[in-house]
Amino acid sequence: MTERVVLAYSGGLDTSVAIGWIAEETGAEVVAVAIDCGQGGEDLEVVRQRALDCGAVEAVVADARDEFASQYCVPALRANALYQDRYPLVSALSRPLIVKHLADAARYHNATMVAHGCTGKGNDQVRFEAGLAALFPELKVLAPVRDSGMTRDKAIAFAEEKGLPIDVTKKSPYSIDQNLWGRAVETGFLEDIWNGPIEDVYAYTDNPAEPREADELVITFQSGVPTAVDGKELTPLQVIEELNRRAGAQGVGRIDMVEDRLVGIKSREVYEAPGAVALIAAHQELENVTVERELARFKRGVDQRWGELVYDGLWFSPLKKALDAFIAEANQNVSGDIRMVLHGGRAVVTGRRSEASLYDYELATYDTGDKYDQSLARGFIDVWSMPAKIASLRDQKLAQ
Amino acid sequence: MTERVVLAYSGGLDTSVAIGWIAEETGAEVVAVAIDCGQGGEDLEVVRQRALDCGAVEAVVADARDEFASQYCVPALRANALYQDRYPLVSALSRPLIVKHLADAARYHNATMVAHGCTGKGNDQVRFEAGLAALFPELKVLAPVRDSGMTRDKAIAFAEEKGLPIDVTKKSPYSIDQNLWGRAVETGFLEDIWNGPIEDVYAYTDNPAEPREADELVITFQSGVPTAVDGKELTPLQVIEELNRRAGAQGVGRIDMVEDRLVGIKSREVYEAPGAVALIAAHQELENVTVERELARFKRGVDQRWGELVYDGLWFSPLKKALDAFIAEANQNVSGDIRMVLHGGRAVVTGRRSEASLYDYELATYDTGDKYDQSLARGFIDVWSMPAKIASLRDQKLAQ
Amino acid sequence: MTERVVLAYSGGLDTSVAIGWIAEETGAEVVAVAIDCGQGGEDLEVVRQRALDCGAVEAVVADARDEFASQYCVPALRANALYQDRYPLVSALSRPLIVKHLADAARYHNATMVAHGCTGKGNDQVRFEAGLAALFPELKVLAPVRDSGMTRDKAIAFAEEKGLPIDVTKKSPYSIDQNLWGRAVETGFLEDIWNGPIEDVYAYTDNPAEPREADELVITFQSGVPTAVDGKELTPLQVIEELNRRAGAQGVGRIDMVEDRLVGIKSREVYEAPGAVALIAAHQELENVTVERELARFKRGVDQRWGELVYDGLWFSPLKKALDAFIAEANQNVSGDIRMVLHGGRAVVTGRRSEASLYDYELATYDTGDKYDQSLARGFIDVWSMPAKIASLRDQKLAQ
Amino acid sequence: MTERVVLAYSGGLDTSVAIGWIAEETGAEVVAVAIDCGQGGEDLEVVRQRALDCGAVEAVVADARDEFASQYCVPALRANALYQDRYPLVSALSRPLIVKHLADAARYHNATMVAHGCTGKGNDQVRFEAGLAALFPELKVLAPVRDSGMTRDKAIAFAEEKGLPIDVTKKSPYSIDQNLWGRAVETGFLEDIWNGPIEDVYAYTDNPAEPREADELVITFQSGVPTAVDGKELTPLQVIEELNRRAGAQGVGRIDMVEDRLVGIKSREVYEAPGAVALIAAHQELENVTVERELARFKRGVDQRWGELVYDGLWFSPLKKALDAFIAEANQNVSGDIRMVLHGGRAVVTGRRSEASLYDYELATYDTGDKYDQSLARGFIDVWSMPAKIASLRDQKLAQ
Repeated sequence: MTERVVLAYSGGLDTSVAIGWIAEETGAEVVAVAIDCGQGGEDLEVVRQRALDCGAVEAVVADARDEFASQYCVPALRANALYQDRYPLVSALSRPLIVKHLADAARYHNATMVAHGCTGKGNDQVRFEAGLAALFPELKVLAPVRDSGMTRDKAIAFAEEKGLPIDVTKKSPYSIDQNLWGRAVETGFLEDIWNGPIEDVYAYTDNPAEPREADELVITFQSGVPTAVDGKELTPLQVIEELNRRAGAQGVGRIDMVEDRLVGIKSREVYEAPGAVALIAAHQELENVTVERELARFKRGVDQRWGELVYDGLWFSPLKKALDAFIAEANQNVSGDIRMVLHGGRAVVTGRRSEASLYDYELATYDTGDKYDQSLARGFIDVWSMPAKIASLRDQKLAQ
Repeated sequence: MTERVVLAYSGGLDTSVAIGWIAEETGAEVVAVAIDCGQGGEDLEVVRQRALDCGAVEAVVADARDEFASQYCVPALRANALYQDRYPLVSALSRPLIVKHLADAARYHNATMVAHGCTGKGNDQVRFEAGLAALFPELKVLAPVRDSGMTRDKAIAFAEEKGLPIDVTKKSPYSIDQNLWGRAVETGFLEDIWNGPIEDVYAYTDNPAEPREADELVITFQSGVPTAVDGKELTPLQVIEELNRRAGAQGVGRIDMVEDRLVGIKSREVYEAPGAVALIAAHQELENVTVERELARFKRGVDQRWGELVYDGLWFSPLKKALDAFIAEANQNVSGDIRMVLHGGRAVVTGRRSEASLYDYELATYDTGDKYDQSLARGFIDVWSMPAKIASLRDQKLAQ
Repeated sequence: MTERVVLAYSGGLDTSVAIGWIAEETGAEVVAVAIDCGQGGEDLEVVRQRALDCGAVEAVVADARDEFASQYCVPALRANALYQDRYPLVSALSRPLIVKHLADAARYHNATMVAHGCTGKGNDQVRFEAGLAALFPELKVLAPVRDSGMTRDKAIAFAEEKGLPIDVTKKSPYSIDQNLWGRAVETGFLEDIWNGPIEDVYAYTDNPAEPREADELVITFQSGVPTAVDGKELTPLQVIEELNRRAGAQGVGRIDMVEDRLVGIKSREVYEAPGAVALIAAHQELENVTVERELARFKRGVDQRWGELVYDGLWFSPLKKALDAFIAEANQNVSGDIRMVLHGGRAVVTGRRSEASLYDYELATYDTGDKYDQSLARGFIDVWSMPAKIASLRDQKLAQ
Repeated sequence: MTERVVLAYSGGLDTSVAIGWIAEETGAEVVAVAIDCGQGGEDLEVVRQRALDCGAVEAVVADARDEFASQYCVPALRANALYQDRYPLVSALSRPLIVKHLADAARYHNATMVAHGCTGKGNDQVRFEAGLAALFPELKVLAPVRDSGMTRDKAIAFAEEKGLPIDVTKKSPYSIDQNLWGRAVETGFLEDIWNGPIEDVYAYTDNPAEPREADELVITFQSGVPTAVDGKELTPLQVIEELNRRAGAQGVGRIDMVEDRLVGIKSREVYEAPGAVALIAAHQELENVTVERELARFKRGVDQRWGELVYDGLWFSPLKKALDAFIAEANQNVSGDIRMVLHGGRAVVTGRRSEASLYDYELATYDTGDKYDQSLARGFIDVWSMPAKIASLRDQKLAQ
């Protein structure tokens, strides 16, 4: 029986060519798998047909947007996941989802190999292969772009030679990855890190500098999961779409940074993530209201490690599971409403209310009604500062 | 010989009354100490005279703005210090500076006591007393507002009874603390955390929503210290003042948050810190360019702990000194230029250049000239993902 | 109706006197509550009768040894809890258990107050009161030794005056707290930290220096919980008792250290915890075999924070719950057998076997059968060392 | 001009054969470099002559024991470096020292390549190559055992064919690496992790189970550096040698563990490190006496990361330098005497005294002379427990 390869298929030039390239190289049949993570663009059926036209024996397409929203974006939101305090892990979140579908398809179609179109200097190759190593370690991985010389020029030549139904002439200057949670753009002129991005780079966000009316909204969370906007109950997918639309229209969520790749180099990245940035700002402030201080302090370190792990391709890892258990417990009471103004590139929280609030007006107020017992302070301060005080006395003694 | 009290004097009602209050309560002479940390307002000489007019035997005033900028704000900048990822430690930074001057004055004037005007439910009492415990532990601390019933009403009555030269009628609805690094505002209606701040609350920043031209500038750093703006060499004080002016004019640096106080409660705080917010954004991005990945990852935890310690009043503590040693080493190469656009409440980095850059165009580029050896990836990925892969195989075996 | 006080009753002089002392001071009725955490000593019924004889209106005694073992000692074991890498949290574990019983008794007996016999400079007062603040914050706390001058001399005088059935003459030089998990000893001559402990200090352990035969045993764990010794299924309580006996007979688990108290001072402590020390050593090594590397590295920080929190009296806190969730997930596969030799004060692991082992002979061996692909190494190393290498090149360039 | 290779030369079979093997493979001249890190064994001059006899064009030998003690072992001691809380980093410490000498020799002898004899599944290859990448990145690395098929059998055949002056018949069942800081042993029967080590495995330590007299000594530290034993001033090298001798004679420092290698697998390792284990125990306790609580708590995480970095081959990395700066500051006051008893495999601290002590008898004592103000406690406890209390009240409200 002929061996089978499951290919992560995007519909673009590289992976369309890879169908035939891999078939020629391995003699195997290629099963193309295309996943909708909210990247928009072509109809899935069109993509499916193109895969078949390019020589795939099977082409599987799946609308995984709800799964992506609830199983990948929401956990990132509960972890306030911002790699290097900035990047909401757009591509890093979709890769494990795609890997899961690839592994499922490989089992269903009895594949012995899996293929992806990543290069050898990015993070996504690690996310694909580390994910597959965890979910289906027996699969052999093929990476024609990285390992068997499928450069862009050779891909175009291959497509022309085979008459593949792909327009090889429309060469975008941008390398783009996008999904429900955001959009990543790389391009030649941004590789000079002194150059600023131009407006043409952006697609999810309008120019924040243009004058427009502000937009105010109320986001409701239940245990850290967004469940409604302006009082209307929505699925996580719907919340993120709504926020992408409204925050995007206000220019919220543009990010321009130098980033530490797992593969050892620094790269310059431009992102847009209007919904993600607005939701994380709202969620952080609701945590400020509902999470106890020591838990909140420790959670910052947990959140950071969660983001690093996911960025580093270790979504399916034991540490990730244990951090998830911590975060789920920490988010149990992160319920309530956040009022937010979106305007001019800013997503600003202006109000919060929660049944689970730990803010106590009567303890906090300086007005009448104050029930904080100020006589406690002196004892607290003396004990609190005692270790540093004793150390200071020691230092003064030794300095004499 | 009559005992002496050194009083942290602001020139306002509470501490002006405290001069006489403490004198009556203790029989001691009061030495008033007023420190200019860039809070603006009255001339120091006016403040000095008022202290004398209110009964102080001595009144010491000091322009400590340069010291504050270079010894307190710059270390905070090198630590990217944002308590709860938001608050740049405005008041928390000035208190140890004031404490240092109080301790110096106490030694010079042979004081046995020191006094401050803090209440018993804020952080500042801790910062004063923990700092004094470290620098001059023998001093007895007096806190008339907290410990001897000097309420606002009693203070007004005292001032009127004694004919003190203070206008007790101008009652601001706002409780304000401000200095070079920023401004903190508390007020009754903001104690309802569902209420948003009104424009009247702000003084350091213009309304970000108003249309205006963007402002672009270049900030130069040497080892994490800002040394020039737009190519003009400046002292740290001058840099911060320039940034306060220009970022403030663009509405940058407004913060509205629920915060975890050291004294055990959550409070609602509104801050403005235009210069601090813009400088930290610039410094963080220059770190992205010049600090190696593993150092950058660990430094986030160090920075967080630094911010907590300073917020918690432990500026003069052994851990603070050791964190400073780490941060100084980590900032050694944080040198170069950051170009930044200030506009509409946003401070956005658009370019970076540095002799100490770790960004390597030839490793990062996808264009011709790429010198990254992509054949390394497979070995890296296999070893990198091996522990999680072995664990996954174990889990699958046990699940059967 | 007369108010009621629930008193944490030990049966000793201080708390026996406290019954009458509190009754006189407050006019309330005293309900004595004595909990068996495995401290040994008198029969609970004797203790109960003494409380009644000393004037308690009710006396509640409870054998909580099973609860203590499974709900307090086992979580500490799964966290490898060693405060300052040494102290297995003996007293710190029993206090929240006692607090829970006090709160239950207070609800049952409609008490409005609760009392303990702690002094004002130890950790236990914090553990009692912080625990009660979480479980029953409405209760008023009485601490006669700390707050109302019930010194030892006054307690003896009170006992004699009232004819209480306590032998006030047997004055031990040692202040002791002991339970199932270990034993803490303080005494005057050990307050000179240059003095070493004498053999007389110890009760749970024989002298490790005396010659005797070694004892070998096999401990079985299921998900981090000890379930059998030498193949015989036991409850956690039985495992700990067995280990206390056998490890104690070999002099295992003596600890002598200077410790950082929560109340701001350093103190000198001597502990014995034969079962705890042996079990933690066994559990740690089983984690080495069954827990993936990155999870194991992060768990060390979690374990440390868990130990600090419990030491610091915050057993009933949100962070503790979230850390527990992490630890439970991390221990899911910590199952298998550990063979251990107990001898001469040492508890040494000599063998481990587990269905959930991540140790793979075929990957680890240098003999025939090696299936590790050594060709992966070069790619791994080059990528792994790339960030530090680029930084080094930068440093060399700048140093020229 | 003929190219040159610098070879890390041990004098054993593998690296002796590597001289000719590399010469044949590359046509280059081989410069052998042998470093004495305290591994004992043959005279350095004998080793040097053998290298020449095996075909090296130059043979460099260096007694680096003092350098190793003061520049590598002492920093590890100040970091209390124990990987996985157990392993004192014996081999991990010597590799960067050897790398430094290799890089120096490569510059001196104008080499373009460097070679080591490591396999492809251990940590040492990473330590060599990551170190060289940092110190001399232009060098090409040769690893004949890993990369060009120089198996043991082939090495023996090569040695016999060339008539190399090496006894190829004496085959030890043990793979050993040893130096001043300790000794590592691997061997086939220990690859079954249920097997215990046999006495034959050990060389640095006598059997701890044999009866003998205890040995008591006093170690003096200055800022974390050991400077004297029993009052006699010694260099770090002499202190470690003395401790190896005396602690080794008491069977101190045997370690048997399953360890997480950087290259992705778990391995079983047996170590002996009598001096290291005794010195770290002494140093830790002196830190307990002289380091303030919050600094001590944070330092544990720093120490752990330091050990991981060094284990992982990143000695010459920016993070390592920054951690060193923290640790140096933290150790500034770690000065004083530790009295320790060595006996039966245990190294037990029995006394400590220090001018820099933070232990204050008058604060700690329960006897007369107590100057701790117990009235502070109540205020401290109420504020300390307030966040968890407020959270508990919230939870109770929501649970209704």
